[in-house]
Amino acid sequence: MTMRHDDTTSDNDTDTDIAPATPDLPSNRGRWGLDDQLGTLNLITEEVRARGAAEVRTGRAVSLAQVIEPAPVVSGPFAPAGRPASPVQQTVTYTGSPTMAAVDVMTVVNHHTRSTHIDALVHIPRDGDVYPGRPLTRSLSPAGAVHGSTTAFAAGIVTRGVLLDLAPGTALEPGHAITARDLEAAEERQGVRLESGDALVVRSGWIGGPQPDREMPGISLDAVRWMDRRGASLFTGDAGDAHPGHDPACPMPLHDVALPLLGMPLIDVPDLEELAAVCAELGRYAFLLTVAPPRIHGLTGVPVNPLALF
Amino acid sequence: MTMRHDDTTSDNDTDTDIAPATPDLPSNRGRWGLDDQLGTLNLITEEVRARGAAEVRTGRAVSLAQVIEPAPVVSGPFAPAGRPASPVQQTVTYTGSPTMAAVDVMTVVNHHTRSTHIDALVHIPRDGDVYPGRPLTRSLSPAGAVHGSTTAFAAGIVTRGVLLDLAPGTALEPGHAITARDLEAAEERQGVRLESGDALVVRSGWIGGPQPDREMPGISLDAVRWMDRRGASLFTGDAGDAHPGHDPACPMPLHDVALPLLGMPLIDVPDLEELAAVCAELGRYAFLLTVAPPRIHGLTGVPVNPLALF
Amino acid sequence: MTMRHDDTTSDNDTDTDIAPATPDLPSNRGRWGLDDQLGTLNLITEEVRARGAAEVRTGRAVSLAQVIEPAPVVSGPFAPAGRPASPVQQTVTYTGSPTMAAVDVMTVVNHHTRSTHIDALVHIPRDGDVYPGRPLTRSLSPAGAVHGSTTAFAAGIVTRGVLLDLAPGTALEPGHAITARDLEAAEERQGVRLESGDALVVRSGWIGGPQPDREMPGISLDAVRWMDRRGASLFTGDAGDAHPGHDPACPMPLHDVALPLLGMPLIDVPDLEELAAVCAELGRYAFLLTVAPPRIHGLTGVPVNPLALF
Amino acid sequence: MTMRHDDTTSDNDTDTDIAPATPDLPSNRGRWGLDDQLGTLNLITEEVRARGAAEVRTGRAVSLAQVIEPAPVVSGPFAPAGRPASPVQQTVTYTGSPTMAAVDVMTVVNHHTRSTHIDALVHIPRDGDVYPGRPLTRSLSPAGAVHGSTTAFAAGIVTRGVLLDLAPGTALEPGHAITARDLEAAEERQGVRLESGDALVVRSGWIGGPQPDREMPGISLDAVRWMDRRGASLFTGDAGDAHPGHDPACPMPLHDVALPLLGMPLIDVPDLEELAAVCAELGRYAFLLTVAPPRIHGLTGVPVNPLALF
Repeated sequence: MTMRHDDTTSDNDTDTDIAPATPDLPSNRGRWGLDDQLGTLNLITEEVRARGAAEVRTGRAVSLAQVIEPAPVVSGPFAPAGRPASPVQQTVTYTGSPTMAAVDVMTVVNHHTRSTHIDALVHIPRDGDVYPGRPLTRSLSPAGAVHGSTTAFAAGIVTRGVLLDLAPGTALEPGHAITARDLEAAEERQGVRLESGDALVVRSGWIGGPQPDREMPGISLDAVRWMDRRGASLFTGDAGDAHPGHDPACPMPLHDVALPLLGMPLIDVPDLEELAAVCAELGRYAFLLTVAPPRIHGLTGVPVNPLALF
Repeated sequence: MTMRHDDTTSDNDTDTDIAPATPDLPSNRGRWGLDDQLGTLNLITEEVRARGAAEVRTGRAVSLAQVIEPAPVVSGPFAPAGRPASPVQQTVTYTGSPTMAAVDVMTVVNHHTRSTHIDALVHIPRDGDVYPGRPLTRSLSPAGAVHGSTTAFAAGIVTRGVLLDLAPGTALEPGHAITARDLEAAEERQGVRLESGDALVVRSGWIGGPQPDREMPGISLDAVRWMDRRGASLFTGDAGDAHPGHDPACPMPLHDVALPLLGMPLIDVPDLEELAAVCAELGRYAFLLTVAPPRIHGLTGVPVNPLALF
Repeated sequence: MTMRHDDTTSDNDTDTDIAPATPDLPSNRGRWGLDDQLGTLNLITEEVRARGAAEVRTGRAVSLAQVIEPAPVVSGPFAPAGRPASPVQQTVTYTGSPTMAAVDVMTVVNHHTRSTHIDALVHIPRDGDVYPGRPLTRSLSPAGAVHGSTTAFAAGIVTRGVLLDLAPGTALEPGHAITARDLEAAEERQGVRLESGDALVVRSGWIGGPQPDREMPGISLDAVRWMDRRGASLFTGDAGDAHPGHDPACPMPLHDVALPLLGMPLIDVPDLEELAAVCAELGRYAFLLTVAPPRIHGLTGVPVNPLALF
Repeated sequence: MTMRHDDTTSDNDTDTDIAPATPDLPSNRGRWGLDDQLGTLNLITEEVRARGAAEVRTGRAVSLAQVIEPAPVVSGPFAPAGRPASPVQQTVTYTGSPTMAAVDVMTVVNHHTRSTHIDALVHIPRDGDVYPGRPLTRSLSPAGAVHGSTTAFAAGIVTRGVLLDLAPGTALEPGHAITARDLEAAEERQGVRLESGDALVVRSGWIGGPQPDREMPGISLDAVRWMDRRGASLFTGDAGDAHPGHDPACPMPLHDVALPLLGMPLIDVPDLEELAAVCAELGRYAFLLTVAPPRIHGLTGVPVNPLALF
């Protein structure tokens, strides 16, 4: 490994000696071997976890997930004329008449703009290859993913989380491109610093994910380079990739660079309002972050309910 | 409320002044009001959470969930002649040709003997009523549950967890009826005590849930009474209700008494092997337990990935 | 058997010697034995089929089914804010990258007001019993139906069909209660007669099924008695049971009497506009009707695409 | 159009003036325009349907579909260790307690080797293009098919069907390559002739579709050329493409030539045993064939229950 990845306090983007897929883009391909499935989760060391554990004092917990109201598959004699699209559809069934037990089956769209979910590394290939360079066709079939899947997260992710609130009490301007400067300004304002292995949580004040008629702010490639330099193990933010993209050459820096080249898992569309309020109330912006999806292997993504523990 | 519920250190089963559904059975019906949906989760106070938080020192995390390997909905031209029943079925889909992104849809049987899942209080009525006494027909419809559902857990449950390992390094005898005496013996052996609001985690060494041809050990009504006296907020154990039941008059003390009368959420079929090993290694049997299912409201149950944090 | 059922030209409602579930209601319970699963389909004799076959001259075919546009389970990055409720949800998947084959999975709500479907006899019990008197609890479980299911239709239903158009070129008045008199008036106007074993097809001009804000016309108990006397083997109509019901004592004569007592399969929410136009054009209102659902056993109902062959 | 396609009685394979996708392969690309979605169904003229109608005398009907036993999504407390793969999975639900109505939801794998289903033309592209030459990427998305889908069949297919029984009372040898000679020998033996627009039904005696350990006989490219010369509008056979393929250069003549180049819909894995018995009993091998899938648009395929009417 090069110094670059150990020296996480440096803001200089020095190249690694392992050739990235595209010369100008940050990449961890090859850094942890050709069979690696953890990507930046490799940065979560015992030391990092202990740093997170030190933040747990009262056991207060805040969920970073949006609420999902499932849509019924079966409804009454008058089916609704329309329904809000839900990531979860529910069918209830019963045993006995009268009922002895009630159970249900749910169908979950694992990547959905109204569901807080984690993207597995197989979700987006780059030039036909999944991180760290394995052909998609050998990673995924209609029968599931055999590489870069949710298997990597299934036992849970626990690390220190750091919230950077870019617009305390308000929201970023429409179309704003979030840069390293924004992130560092928040660090300074809050008196916190993202260290190697920490999960980065970015609040923009744009809740609810992308919308057809709102020019969402978004993470720039500059900010992704910063995450790489700092050693973020995981990214989540209520603004992710901008909609529409800022840079035609790289419209989705998170999904097209951080995920497939850095191997950085992304938690899409969190709800960070309560977290920001609690951090402000407590005057501290670091916490122990737990991400414990249902322990299902082989998926391309899965809903999660990340908890910030104080 | 009566002294009984405050005095969680007493082992005497004194009756409450609120009539339980069945005179001889422990019940919290009415204890927290007629609209209550939290049940024994009401016992998790700030003090309890702080007691749990004090157990977090290194950030080491252990998952209590079984691994789920999803079954493919679509497979190759030769569909398999048979497949193991899985609680999760997966359909993968793609955008673009060549593929630009891969996503999937999963169908989840929320109550499944091969899936670690939490039972919501609406799951089992007693005499037609759901905890704390609301008719099932006003609590649940094919369009979902409006009372006693997973909404109560959706923001996450965080409390102190206590593992009682009833058979360290081995397994209980087939058909063993787990009693208060077994639980107290484990407390004494381990030097730990289940306090009011703690989550009770019971290891029997019977992994993988009920099996057609194994006479599973199980929790007796006596043990449920003990949980009530002690103030357990939550139960999980690799042996739950015995199969077949021990007592014809009450074959399923957890699902037919603890859930619908005490209002105690149950986490069915956990895998406690790694947890037991880590507790033995560290010499401590208490930890901070987080239960953070996908934040989905209105279900009768949902897969969970409980984490024990040390 | 009593004369009543053989003498299908009689309009007198003479009772059978087998006690019906409710004395005043028409019933076939017991008529074809206690294990019968065919109900009024027993009336389709070779002679009836030959009568239908005689109507086939040109091979012209008209579908009586509504078009179903499936809703996608997975859609683009911007999920629609809402979607019309569809009885069918579709997930497409592919093999290969580039794609070698495209396949899909669909989830079908078998009873849906926007889907032309056939109700199996198990669909509605009466006083806890399914036609011809078997307890629902021994007929159906969460694992499927073992009595009165779509198994009875799975190899296809073929008989003569007769369209009675109650409002040629227009529609019945809102809330109209369709009686025997209406049906006989149409017979006379059209010069056709429903004989024993024929499928009855009734057009009201109310297409698209029940609507929340429209007081649908509907079949009266008087009309169901007429169907029984005449020996209809099957009923379909663009107005079925009235919404709201006309008679508080029997608000759903088709679903609560014809189905569970007569054992008459119902095809809900057909689209009869093209059929009515073709019948008028040809000047004949009888045809060979084929009902060939996917050959799936054990369902409570299933979408069908009935064809009228001329 | 060239004479070739009108002169369906000629066995000479004269080329059309419209360039096929691959020079040596039969093709209808361009024959009915660039937006055509019917393919060989265009050959079903009024005259063809009348020829089929003339076969209907008694109304006797035979289903060509396999029986599908659905698998339950939810089963008892002891989930089965394994289950036969079924193309249909069923979830039953109820209203009321006690039950007032029972309904179900089914999930259908539209292309499944244990389900008699029709392949829409979009199912298999050739060199990235769907019949009659439209890029797959403009024909299909995760949200469904907009070209070459089941929309083409949704109102029903009705034409004359001709059964050619290649092995009356027995079965073809393993691995047998079915050629034009086999088909013509059956015609001669049976005294029937496949005319333009007829549906071709081929019995090999291999029921139940491809099996991992059986070297299935199959249709050769020579037979596909014969279908093209004769003007078959539709193909179904209990042996389809051979498994394993006979000709490495063209292992799947039906799915890789007939479907994407001729635009010929295929009905996979029928059960032809009863049909063959009835034809032999009646001494006639032509009938009116109806194919009336649920009237669902936009699918890549759908289960069907073809009926032969005599």
